[in-house]
Amino acid sequence: MAENLSESSNPILGPDPADESLTRAVVGRDQTGRKVEMRVIEERPLTIYLNRTEVVTAMTIGDHPELLALGFLANQGMLARGEATAVEYDDDLAVVVVRTAKETDYEAKLARKVRTSGCAVGTVFGDMMEGLEGLRLPEARVRVADLYALAHKINTMPSLYLEAGAIHGTVLCEGTRPLVYMEDVGRHNAVDKVAGWMLQEGANPANKVLYTTGRLTSEMVIKCALMGIPALVSRSGFTAWGVEIAQKVGLTLVGRMRGERFICLSGQERLEWPE
Amino acid sequence: MAENLSESSNPILGPDPADESLTRAVVGRDQTGRKVEMRVIEERPLTIYLNRTEVVTAMTIGDHPELLALGFLANQGMLARGEATAVEYDDDLAVVVVRTAKETDYEAKLARKVRTSGCAVGTVFGDMMEGLEGLRLPEARVRVADLYALAHKINTMPSLYLEAGAIHGTVLCEGTRPLVYMEDVGRHNAVDKVAGWMLQEGANPANKVLYTTGRLTSEMVIKCALMGIPALVSRSGFTAWGVEIAQKVGLTLVGRMRGERFICLSGQERLEWPE
Repeated sequence: MAENLSESSNPILGPDPADESLTRAVVGRDQTGRKVEMRVIEERPLTIYLNRTEVVTAMTIGDHPELLALGFLANQGMLARGEATAVEYDDDLAVVVVRTAKETDYEAKLARKVRTSGCAVGTVFGDMMEGLEGLRLPEARVRVADLYALAHKINTMPSLYLEAGAIHGTVLCEGTRPLVYMEDVGRHNAVDKVAGWMLQEGANPANKVLYTTGRLTSEMVIKCALMGIPALVSRSGFTAWGVEIAQKVGLTLVGRMRGERFICLSGQERLEWPE
Repeated sequence: MAENLSESSNPILGPDPADESLTRAVVGRDQTGRKVEMRVIEERPLTIYLNRTEVVTAMTIGDHPELLALGFLANQGMLARGEATAVEYDDDLAVVVVRTAKETDYEAKLARKVRTSGCAVGTVFGDMMEGLEGLRLPEARVRVADLYALAHKINTMPSLYLEAGAIHGTVLCEGTRPLVYMEDVGRHNAVDKVAGWMLQEGANPANKVLYTTGRLTSEMVIKCALMGIPALVSRSGFTAWGVEIAQKVGLTLVGRMRGERFICLSGQERLEWPE
């Protein structure tokens, strides 16, 4: 266990429960009518632009807006690695603009589809699905003992969840080390912020595991697959379409992980038990 | 407790865990490598049209598509009570069309905003906020003992949650009776299905309480307020913006309700304790 407590097991980027801009003190009553003061999570709109095109308004806690914008666009298939030339965040306007050297294909595509369908929401989802075609995740070994060590570390690490609750976490891990721990009011934002970090750093996804506190829905599975990460782990449960997509792309999907119990519904051939 | 178990305490409309179309049997492995079979929740796209205008594609378990469409449009401020002349559901296409006698204001508005902003997501949220202006929820008494009785009933009622997990529930309640219990992979869908039922039945919101398993985010608080229900209760936690909006519209907001403990962060003047 000594290694687990060493400096190198701290995440490179993690939650900052001490950041006062992420929570707000509120006063209320408990079940006895007694006055209580508590801290609750902030939730703010952030509008993401790709060059001159407004793409989406996300509800977020507001930390790492640049990574959220990069990761969101990457997971939508609107931005490839190395394509972003600048990321500008305006705190007052609550706007992030991601710039590319020339207008991307996506902007023309969005404009065209909006004209025919009235709203881009369906389009956005369709584009995520398109990115999965022919995708096959890399071979990898996933040590069951590592998963237990990771879950223990993540659950006991200082976090906004432990501070104020009502928040989801997603953690990029390598071996037994949580590398990047992101939290947000929407679980898709937490995973997009991780994706933004990977894009920015040019991180290799093949030797990583993604841990999430949220359910293993189709959206979460698709994002993990598009990020090229071969294993997705959660303390929560599954949806049928999430399982189906995971099986199609060869993603190891581990859910309901509590203590040393879990269920694996896809890619169990990657799992490695102790001798 | 006899009254709690009487026939009249059953919901009018509730989860149907026996409906095999809502879950799928899948085979996997547990932590020992042993083969396990379990049922997981289905998750399907459903596209909602208002007349000829495509509005949104929602990911849903697929029950009550007509109520989901009605409630979604009502909560977006796109549809008033009595305005829908027909609701057509096509199972094969996974499409619901809500028809009105004449084209609604919203369609022109959506077309105009889409042209200027590229995507309607921000617009949709903005419209929900607009609906809150000047809104003040009705006076009401909320008996703390009723909340405990409701939570106990809801937690022990047959549900897809108890059957397969990974799903959110929202329950429209009156006194100690759960009237309509809706479940869905997205908590916003569960509350929209409740809104659809209220619209269809012309239900009076002033004497109701809305119970949800999900967090008390801005979206959940806004929907409850737009539905005219004066109290929102959850076992989960709060976000700061959710609390702020609740205080603004005079909504009683009770969270972290477990057993006979809770926190109330807005509208505590409605709460009534036993003598």
